[in-house]
Amino acid sequence: MDLETVKKYLEKGGGDEDGNALTTQGMPSRFFQNFIMHGLRVDLIEQGRILCSMKVPPRLLNAGNFLHGGATASLVDLVGSAVIYTYGVSSSGVSVEINVSYLDAAYVDEEIEIEARALRVGKTVAVVSVEFRKKNTGKIVAEGRHTKYLPVQSKM
Amino acid sequence: MDLETVKKYLEKGGGDEDGNALTTQGMPSRFFQNFIMHGLRVDLIEQGRILCSMKVPPRLLNAGNFLHGGATASLVDLVGSAVIYTYGVSSSGVSVEINVSYLDAAYVDEEIEIEARALRVGKTVAVVSVEFRKKNTGKIVAEGRHTKYLPVQSKM
Amino acid sequence: MDLETVKKYLEKGGGDEDGNALTTQGMPSRFFQNFIMHGLRVDLIEQGRILCSMKVPPRLLNAGNFLHGGATASLVDLVGSAVIYTYGVSSSGVSVEINVSYLDAAYVDEEIEIEARALRVGKTVAVVSVEFRKKNTGKIVAEGRHTKYLPVQSKM
Amino acid sequence: MDLETVKKYLEKGGGDEDGNALTTQGMPSRFFQNFIMHGLRVDLIEQGRILCSMKVPPRLLNAGNFLHGGATASLVDLVGSAVIYTYGVSSSGVSVEINVSYLDAAYVDEEIEIEARALRVGKTVAVVSVEFRKKNTGKIVAEGRHTKYLPVQSKM
Repeated sequence: MDLETVKKYLEKGGGDEDGNALTTQGMPSRFFQNFIMHGLRVDLIEQGRILCSMKVPPRLLNAGNFLHGGATASLVDLVGSAVIYTYGVSSSGVSVEINVSYLDAAYVDEEIEIEARALRVGKTVAVVSVEFRKKNTGKIVAEGRHTKYLPVQSKM
Repeated sequence: MDLETVKKYLEKGGGDEDGNALTTQGMPSRFFQNFIMHGLRVDLIEQGRILCSMKVPPRLLNAGNFLHGGATASLVDLVGSAVIYTYGVSSSGVSVEINVSYLDAAYVDEEIEIEARALRVGKTVAVVSVEFRKKNTGKIVAEGRHTKYLPVQSKM
Repeated sequence: MDLETVKKYLEKGGGDEDGNALTTQGMPSRFFQNFIMHGLRVDLIEQGRILCSMKVPPRLLNAGNFLHGGATASLVDLVGSAVIYTYGVSSSGVSVEINVSYLDAAYVDEEIEIEARALRVGKTVAVVSVEFRKKNTGKIVAEGRHTKYLPVQSKM
Repeated sequence: MDLETVKKYLEKGGGDEDGNALTTQGMPSRFFQNFIMHGLRVDLIEQGRILCSMKVPPRLLNAGNFLHGGATASLVDLVGSAVIYTYGVSSSGVSVEINVSYLDAAYVDEEIEIEARALRVGKTVAVVSVEFRKKNTGKIVAEGRHTKYLPVQSKM
């Protein structure tokens, strides 16, 4: 993927065509990822690094009214995968491991920024770190790492 | 919580009353957790261990049409937290760390079972392991661990 | 490796010949692993599972006089790798990720058992869980997971 | 601890007195940590951040002649703990979780730098990230995270 396509993937869930294609039992094929990523804005994108931001939306809150740990982990997965696409590959591989440390609560309507940074993109294994910060203070909300296995592939 | 209440929490998202209570901007207060857990059935519940099952639903699929890694991590969070409630505490604490290894794909409509087992529930830190298996073969789909911090609390 | 060779590797650090071979700057080539594993006994070994035991030795203690977290992580690495050898491969691959949860202290001279179980050994990625328990009570001391990348290889 | 004491702890294992004190069965009380950290130099130390360097020593190699994964994890533990001391507390707490991603091999005599950065030091939980880089290229060798529980304590 070129960088513009990766940006579109993050902000629109892969484009109008794919995003709306129906799949099993009538659900759009990228329903879950769109559900998580809706409202995400890409502020910077370059090979190996993506900086994006998001206003914590009501749909992703936990019972304590702050960003749900499962939503944070889902964003580690999705934004972490997007960084691998910035290397021009046609697939971001399959997840091997995800871990997340939860450091602070991000409440509804708070602006957070999410920075994904490739630590290594080898021929078969890629590792990405993903950091969540409060936009107004820079305080770290969560720190995650995503390991993916890259099957043999041709570059696009 | 008593075991019956924990079961209800997993299967109904905390009961009709709470589940439907409106919160910030008109979203039900447990929208995300209900979105993830809808369809979960508790097969066994005892102190320190919960076994439940689920048919992989279309709404939690990734673009490859199998259970999304973010949904798996969300279930580690939610079912892992429920196990802490089986000790009769009134709060399951706040998440400190979650990690998940992804071992196999679970496709739409496959029956999976999720087993959460408390490794330690101390006065201040609790650690739970959560294993996802295919029901018909027993093959492991994912293996996760959830660490929570338990603030000082009175037992219910 | 056949199972007898894996057992010897764990209990003797790879045999007298290799274990004593000199390497860079005169250090035996498996000094670190022998330093960690000395005293380990294999109680059971089968494909995909190894159960071994150890008396916590003074050399692996932390300043609090219980098993050092770094020693525990080293054992996750070493015993976790040994399990991969039980599949008859000639290399256990390279480490991709290790994680460990510390649940209880194991004091000097306490007997612990270490159980390593392969969660998945695929063509390119292997994941192993490693659990440390007190032998007399069964109480879990630590729970770890080890992910390895297996380069293309011929079976021995 | 003040910063000078933390520096001494990393470079000398806690000072001549403690370092040589005999403990159970005649082993010095900080034998393991000295074994791992011997040769470590502190290049920068400030509240919440420590940068140190080390020439990969023969005693910490694996059978492939590069830094052993268990040694790396041990350094995540030790240097990660030292960062907590920079906040002036008298104990760095007990380990709750350690994870490490292995990204590249560091061969014998290579100069590596180890940067530990506190992500959060709260009243009861501290999380530290520890990055290992090759000094001459800046290439990341390993990336780890260390979570500790801080028991109630008075500041020194």
